[in-house]
Amino acid sequence: MNNMDISKHLSIWPKLTKREQERLVEAATFDTVKAGEHIHDGNKECTGLILVASGQLRAYIISESGKEITLYRLLEGDICLFSASCIINNLKLDIMIKAEKDTSFWLIPTETYKSLMDQSVTISNYTNEILASRMSDIVYLMEQVMWHSFDQRLASFLVNESTLENSERLSITHEEIANHMGTAREVVTRMLKYFQSEGLVSLSRGSIEINDVSRLKALAE
Amino acid sequence: MNNMDISKHLSIWPKLTKREQERLVEAATFDTVKAGEHIHDGNKECTGLILVASGQLRAYIISESGKEITLYRLLEGDICLFSASCIINNLKLDIMIKAEKDTSFWLIPTETYKSLMDQSVTISNYTNEILASRMSDIVYLMEQVMWHSFDQRLASFLVNESTLENSERLSITHEEIANHMGTAREVVTRMLKYFQSEGLVSLSRGSIEINDVSRLKALAE
Repeated sequence: MNNMDISKHLSIWPKLTKREQERLVEAATFDTVKAGEHIHDGNKECTGLILVASGQLRAYIISESGKEITLYRLLEGDICLFSASCIINNLKLDIMIKAEKDTSFWLIPTETYKSLMDQSVTISNYTNEILASRMSDIVYLMEQVMWHSFDQRLASFLVNESTLENSERLSITHEEIANHMGTAREVVTRMLKYFQSEGLVSLSRGSIEINDVSRLKALAE
Repeated sequence: MNNMDISKHLSIWPKLTKREQERLVEAATFDTVKAGEHIHDGNKECTGLILVASGQLRAYIISESGKEITLYRLLEGDICLFSASCIINNLKLDIMIKAEKDTSFWLIPTETYKSLMDQSVTISNYTNEILASRMSDIVYLMEQVMWHSFDQRLASFLVNESTLENSERLSITHEEIANHMGTAREVVTRMLKYFQSEGLVSLSRGSIEINDVSRLKALAE
């Protein structure tokens, strides 16, 4: 695996000039993290742009008291701008990024990306599209949090996880679900037990089996 | 008042080329709305870019059942991209924009802005900054909604309104506050009555007098 592979994961690649492509290949470094490791810790650092090659990252915010909520996931081919928020004025977001699975990624140094963005309208407009896409995710999440009841949100979360994992058996703890959803473990446990009593899921230690995905989907909507 | 004034309100103006400036002046139209009028109604329309000359606009989302929450305000010199969300791929946001005060604004046609953005790295990066700034507002709001109790949020809202209006007497109904905060009128009324019993505010029909702004500020933090 070498940096040349960056071309396969960067959707904008064919639209770049030869020189821009070369600069990216020269500057980007390839790295891996294990599941559970942090790759970016809020506003303090300007880690660089992360381009996911494989695996899964989670972007989240954390409260003063340590509560978490997941803003969005980053999968193969996704780019995270917030790990390089210093490249854009006005972007003052304390977003944390953690690997949910073993993840490989390219890191594009901040200075390289900033200089490309300042010179290339293609890259600058691409950046607009990434920002717009994350913004849509976050407003969607806001709508969920504001207008949807917790049973709807939990049903929706389980359906999404099942799609993401391509499995009806989810290896996830109640604590982890609470951290994704911005709530307390007890709240998750109580609702999962209710779901179990309704025959929607079966609970066992460290995992959840989805028994009736179509009823969960109906509940989510 | 004519379109030439656009130069005074568009912060990026001095960085534009003569030709870009001319294109904006040629294309932009000046308009006014009365307080209470809608200026943009969600994703269906691509109204164009709104640049506020004077007054105050409110950007908000609305639930299927008609509940509202304010995402951010637009004041003099602010630009709203979401009224032209069709210019950016991936920006799928049903955001409504309504005048809170009599407002005058320039409307930059979508095609003009899109064409400028596609040609000018200055304008494209400016767009990035606007998006980033709105994103920061929305993530801040998300943090408020997720981690802060309603009394904190209401105290913070009253302090902000007081700053915005430059007055300790706010002409606002409980219903309007509920729409800003994404909650029900009854919830607002109950908390305001509690604030009154604590000597923080005095309530009268259609208005709220802030009696102790420093205690409200302390409560907000």
